[in-house]
Order: sequence, then structure tokens, then C-alpha cells
Amino acid sequence: MTPRLRHLTTLENMPRATIERLLDRAVAMRDACAHGTRKLDLLAGRTILNLFFEPSTRTRTSFELAARRLGADVINFDIGFSSTSKGEELYDTLHTLEAMHLDAIVVRHKISGTPDELVRHAMSGVSVINAGDGNRAHPTQGLLDALTIRQHRPNFEQLGVVICGDVKHSRVARSDVHALAALGVRDIRLCAPAALMPGEHELPHCQRFTDFDEAVTGADAVIMLRLQKERMAATDLQDEADYFRHYGLDTRRLALAARSALVMHPGPLNRGIEISSEVADGAQSRILEQVGNGVFVRMAVLAEMLARP
Amino acid sequence: MTPRLRHLTTLENMPRATIERLLDRAVAMRDACAHGTRKLDLLAGRTILNLFFEPSTRTRTSFELAARRLGADVINFDIGFSSTSKGEELYDTLHTLEAMHLDAIVVRHKISGTPDELVRHAMSGVSVINAGDGNRAHPTQGLLDALTIRQHRPNFEQLGVVICGDVKHSRVARSDVHALAALGVRDIRLCAPAALMPGEHELPHCQRFTDFDEAVTGADAVIMLRLQKERMAATDLQDEADYFRHYGLDTRRLALAARSALVMHPGPLNRGIEISSEVADGAQSRILEQVGNGVFVRMAVLAEMLARP
Amino acid sequence: MTPRLRHLTTLENMPRATIERLLDRAVAMRDACAHGTRKLDLLAGRTILNLFFEPSTRTRTSFELAARRLGADVINFDIGFSSTSKGEELYDTLHTLEAMHLDAIVVRHKISGTPDELVRHAMSGVSVINAGDGNRAHPTQGLLDALTIRQHRPNFEQLGVVICGDVKHSRVARSDVHALAALGVRDIRLCAPAALMPGEHELPHCQRFTDFDEAVTGADAVIMLRLQKERMAATDLQDEADYFRHYGLDTRRLALAARSALVMHPGPLNRGIEISSEVADGAQSRILEQVGNGVFVRMAVLAEMLARP
Repeated sequence: MTPRLRHLTTLENMPRATIERLLDRAVAMRDACAHGTRKLDLLAGRTILNLFFEPSTRTRTSFELAARRLGADVINFDIGFSSTSKGEELYDTLHTLEAMHLDAIVVRHKISGTPDELVRHAMSGVSVINAGDGNRAHPTQGLLDALTIRQHRPNFEQLGVVICGDVKHSRVARSDVHALAALGVRDIRLCAPAALMPGEHELPHCQRFTDFDEAVTGADAVIMLRLQKERMAATDLQDEADYFRHYGLDTRRLALAARSALVMHPGPLNRGIEISSEVADGAQSRILEQVGNGVFVRMAVLAEMLARP
Repeated sequence: MTPRLRHLTTLENMPRATIERLLDRAVAMRDACAHGTRKLDLLAGRTILNLFFEPSTRTRTSFELAARRLGADVINFDIGFSSTSKGEELYDTLHTLEAMHLDAIVVRHKISGTPDELVRHAMSGVSVINAGDGNRAHPTQGLLDALTIRQHRPNFEQLGVVICGDVKHSRVARSDVHALAALGVRDIRLCAPAALMPGEHELPHCQRFTDFDEAVTGADAVIMLRLQKERMAATDLQDEADYFRHYGLDTRRLALAARSALVMHPGPLNRGIEISSEVADGAQSRILEQVGNGVFVRMAVLAEMLARP
Repeated sequence: MTPRLRHLTTLENMPRATIERLLDRAVAMRDACAHGTRKLDLLAGRTILNLFFEPSTRTRTSFELAARRLGADVINFDIGFSSTSKGEELYDTLHTLEAMHLDAIVVRHKISGTPDELVRHAMSGVSVINAGDGNRAHPTQGLLDALTIRQHRPNFEQLGVVICGDVKHSRVARSDVHALAALGVRDIRLCAPAALMPGEHELPHCQRFTDFDEAVTGADAVIMLRLQKERMAATDLQDEADYFRHYGLDTRRLALAARSALVMHPGPLNRGIEISSEVADGAQSRILEQVGNGVFVRMAVLAEMLARP
């Protein structure tokens, strides 16, 4: 058995067995909740702190719910989002929180690598969980996406998965690739305008496409990324309608994918920019299932780290 | 018995029996607390989310206290108050929250009808509670005002109640009228400068006054509304002192009302604008009782909706 | 035995026996936590409200943790920090909160004396705890500093303690002096540039120094204060480097103090301005111990006030 997780900063190089254990644990959480269990006591008396240097109501709420369903206390440490807090100032905040005997810190920060810096500087037994750092990693999103796909298409070796949009700046894309590759998906296709595609040295196992029609053909799951509107300027595309024409998922394009291909999106949606409402709300959409799985995956991660064996 | 409430968006057309059941339940909550019960377990394991698109520390805190006293968890979903979030964006937020398996959403929004929109678009078993929408409804305020009056003047058929101030833009006034009319109050008087009086088609059972002295004469309860200072301009009145002279409640005017008439205000007070400090802090003031009843009414509403039978 | 505390607004004139009881209780809390107790039930069913008119994530979090470890519920009442809320408006907020039957209000406000105003205007059994008012008092900081010193140097009568920095504007300095003097410390030295030294009538039992080398010589504990950068202008010092040269604590200066003198700071640190990183992170630093003691002292204060005997 792979060792118990102490921190979670990235899925890169995480052993397949650890990922599978976390997904299995998330399924157990989902089953308990489906059978009417409203609260588990696994983390009674534990305190988890949300340390968000970037605003994110959805992810913060998902972690808060996960922690409370396990019986833990949650504290939101409200950082002014104007400050990025780095270097000594960041470590002083970390050490202050450690001195208060918290059990885990859930951190989001716009600078890639910040969670690892916290792990490196942590002095006590506190666990660090990355809730998104720069464009580097969003490991619980990667896990919840893998879980959502596994539920419907468990034969990962045979799957084709497309990730389309601003791949270059997307921590979701990176964590998805790390999770899916570890679980055996061999056919991972990245699709983006040239200016929004990461360099060749990054994510080397993936195929790259600039033509979305080509990329989506025969795919079993299509993961659409949110376009930060300020990134539009970097592309050759003239406006949002133009972006949608080339990189938006609509019913015509979805019909090119495999029958009943899964449609996914980390949210929040830009309807009419990267995805049509018809597809987002259609029968193949797994978007809300992703949200539900997000809570179970975060419960699994917290339980793995903090529950007494 | 009228059916159990599933949502609470307005008191308009709510059956008298339902209102009375909620008030009775609020009294039971008050009695339990008065006898030293600090926490009930009726909602253990339930999660209630505060979704406030308008800031309101008092109402949010009242709901939070009510939920916690029933043993529920509470999550504050911090929406940037700059955004109103409407249409697809609002429904996406709703569906995201539903996918996280919340039990109830307490919503405040400046657009009238938003809570009903949420009810219409809700897909799962989540309950929606209106904490104030535009100038349309503030049902828990209507219930707590009815409860406060009932405590002191239970014979609703014989009562005269004045509601004075910016009636036109007041959701409190509307919910008060709906509650009181349903409970049998026949003499409801609205008093406002002409520009702040709602159209005749609205609240048709009420008498309308522009002269406060006339309106208050013989009244058993006087509900003063908060004047939004930016509304002053719409009136013929020159300034706040002028407003107070015509529509403020002071001891002289209160003496025109019935003996021991109840003085009420939803808060926060504009002292010296719509009410004098002497009256607000005087023996006839029920303003703080209203605040206390607010918690009990919200406990009653949450228990009605969410407690297992 | 001195009477049980009902409110805590200042340590000035607090009997030595009361201070010692609070410190002993804090030690008992620390011991319980060290032995694995994660949660006490002393305050189950109680509700504590944080009413912060000045932002302070660290102190607010410390109080929140303390309350939750005792089983209490905590509500953060989010005041817009632009408003100071004083006079009638402040009392209306107080009375509203009292009407909601809260057990304690933890208040921070930039106007000195605000907590006492709240005590004077409180109508019900609510307890008021000062989390810092203007430059007047920060009693839980005074207690935690006394506890940190007592742990290492229990013979208060023989101690020399230096407090260095912007003493004039520091509520920490005042509460430290009140605590230490009550506990028997006779040699308390204040060190500051002339413009940042309080008037002679204030803190009369202390020795005053403008030369830090002289002040620190032989001291057993050195408490450094945070310099608000906007205060620099008032001094004769040219810039932060100049301030550090005259009033910063570095290894050379620390060597003038007694062997193993304690280094303390209320945080957050301005490294390189009032303290060098080498000293802040060095073997003599008790800064993180102070943070940990802060939680235990706040648990002690809350339990003293609110636990059933």
C-alpha cells in the first residue's frame, strides 16, 4: 500500500495506487451520503483553515462542506485579495497558523508553487492542501474529474479525452492530465489556439490540436476550460463569437465525439463563449455531477490526511 | 392541516393556518430558549447556505443564529455585492449549490422575484427562503412583526395598524400587510408622502394617508419604516428635519395613538429622521423584541421546512 | 477568591489574583490540548460574536479557535471597515445583538474606550471582551505575554523587561505593563524615539529610554512592537534602515541583554525594521509560543466568563 498522504500539492508523479485509493474513498463517502448519512465523525475536533489569496467562492464552499460533513471545524482566514503575500510574510502567516495548532491549511494562491513553499517551511504537523496555485495544479479538481469519468467510463486504457480551451494557463488541465495519465488514459488530446497552448516540453504525452473538430472526433470525454476574457487578446480570434465558432462546444461539434461522450467543465461557465447552453444543460453534461463529486473527493482527501487510522 | 412549507418566498396568499402554525412554532422555540435550552438538535447534519447579493449583517446573523440553535451547519457564500448575478449566471450558481447537496438556501437579492426564479429553476430537494427581494417581500420580517403584535394584542380583528414611511419601496411593508391581513387585521393604514406611496392596485385593502397625525390617531401599533436617504429627493420635503416633522414618530404624535400603542421598526434606525430617540428607546418600543422574535421565527421556518417529521 | 470576570476591557487595576487565575486556567487549557483533548464542551450551546471594526485576521482567528475548542458557536459580524460606527449607531448594534441572545461579544474598534461604552450600555447578560481599542488596551495580548514570560522566568520580582518601539500608540505596550506590574515586575523599561514615547503621566512606574542599547542591557525579556510605517515621519529617523539602526533588535543588541533573554513580538513582524530575521527566527525567540498561548489565554477568558460554575 502506498503511504498515507501528508500533503496534497500536485498530482504530478502521484502513484496510481494513491489516486485510486482516494477515488475509492470518495465513492465510499458518496455512498454513505446517498444512504442518508448526513455527518460523519471522522474529523471531530479537527480544525481546517481556508487560506485563499484568490477569491473562489465555489471551491472554498466545497472544501468547507467537505470538512463539516466529516465533523471538522472550518475557519475562513480572510486575506485581502489585493495582497499576494509572498516570501517571509507568507511564512510568518504559515507559522502563526501552525502555532495555533490547526490540522490542515487549504491554500489558493496565484503564484505557482506556493503550496510547496508552505510544505517546505512548515514546522509542525499541519497538512497543506492545494486548492489551486497559479497555472500549475488544482489537484482536487483533477481527482474529481477522474472520478466523474471513471463512474461512466471505467476502462481508462481505451478512452480518448479532449481538453479544450486556454490550456496554457490552466491548472485544471495540468491536474487532469496528471490524474488521467496515471490512471492509464493513453489518448489525451489538448486543443487550443496556438497562443494558448503550453510549450512542447510540458505535458509531453498529449497530442496537440488547434482544430477542435479534428480533436473532438471520436472522443469519449470532452473537458472544456473556462476562457478568462482577458486572454482573448492573445489569440488570433476577433471576439467571443469568433472564439466560440472555433473553440466552443455546441451540438454540431459534440456529434463528432463518441456516442454519449461525457461533457465536462470545471465552472463557472461562460455560456456562448466556450460552451453552448444547449450542450451545458444537455443529457450528456456531467457538469453538476462534477460539482457533487468535488465535495466527496475533498472529503476523501481530508479523511486520508487527518483521520486517525 | 395545511401542507408543510417547502419554500418561503412571500406571505402573499399564504393560508392563515400556515401563518399561525409558524407563529405558534416560533413561540415554542422562544419558550424552549427561555427555559434554558441552548441548542436543539432538530436540524443536526443539515446545511443552510446564506446567499446574500445585498449586504445585510443583521438579517444574515439572525438566520445564522437560528440555524445553529437548531444544530444545523451554516455556510456564508460571499457574493461580491457589486454583481447582481441574474439569469443564467444565477441559475448556474443555484445548480452548483444544489449539486453540493445543501438543504436550504437563504437568499437576498435586489431584484424582486429572484427567490421565485430560484424555486422555479431548482432541480433537487433544496428549500429556498427569501430574506428580502427588491421591494417585493421579506416574509420572515412579516412573520416576526405579526408575532410581536400578537404577543401584546392578540385580537387582530379589533386592531388598527399604521405603517408609515417609504411604503412604496418597502418589502417590509408588503409582507407586514400580507401577514396582518391574513391574520384578520381589517384596519391597516399606509402613511407616506405621495411620491412614496404604492399605486392603488397594490395592497388594495389598506387605507391610505399622507397626513401622519390623521393616520396614527387611535392606532394600536405603529410600524415605522427606514427611510433610504437617497429617496428624500423624490418627496416634496426639503430635508431630513422636514421629513421628521411630517413623517417622524415623536412623543407628541405617539400620544395620538391608542394608549400603550406598540412602536415598531425593522431597523436599522435613522434616529431623528423617521423616529425620535425618545420614542425608539421608550416604554412603548417593541423594536428589540422584534429582533428577538426574528431569531425564533427563523428557527420556526427552518424547522418547518427541514426537520424530519 | 476574586469575583468571576463578567467583562474584559482592560488589565488596568485588575487584581493580581484574577490575572493569576486566568493564567493558571490558560495553562490547564494548554495541558488538556497537549494531552490530546481536541475539544472541550465547557461552552456547548453558547454563541460568541466577533465584532471587528478594524481588520485583524490573526486576533479574530485566535478568538474563533478558542471559542470553538470550548464547543461554542462563533459568528463573525462583518462590519464594513470604512465605518467606525459610534454613538447611537454603535449602541443600536449592541442592543440588536443582545436581543438575539448572544453570550459574548468580542470587539475591536479604533476608538479607545469603545468596549467600556458597550459595557455601560449593555442591557442584558452579554459579556464584552476587548480585542483591542485604539491605543488603550489589548488585554488578552497582555495576558498571553505575561503567560509566555512566566513559563520561562516565573520569578517576576527579579525580572527586567524592555518594551521597545512605538510605545505611544501601542495598546499592546499598555496592557503588557498593566499585566507585568500587577504580577510583580518592578523593572519595566520603555524604549522609544522621543516622539513615540507616551507622556510622563502615563505608565508612571516605568523607566524611560531613548537609547536602546542602554535599555536592553541586562534585560530578561525584550518585547518589540510593530512600527506602523506611517509613524516613521514623526520620528527624527530618516528611513526604515535608520529606524532599525537605532531601535531594531539584532544579534549584537540582543547580546547586551541577559543570557537567554526572551525575544517577543505581538506580530505581524516587520522584519528588518524593528527586528532582524536572525533574531526573530533564532533560539531565543518566543514569538510563536506567544501565538499558541494566545489561543489558550482566550480559552481561559471565555471559560471564566461563560462556563457554568
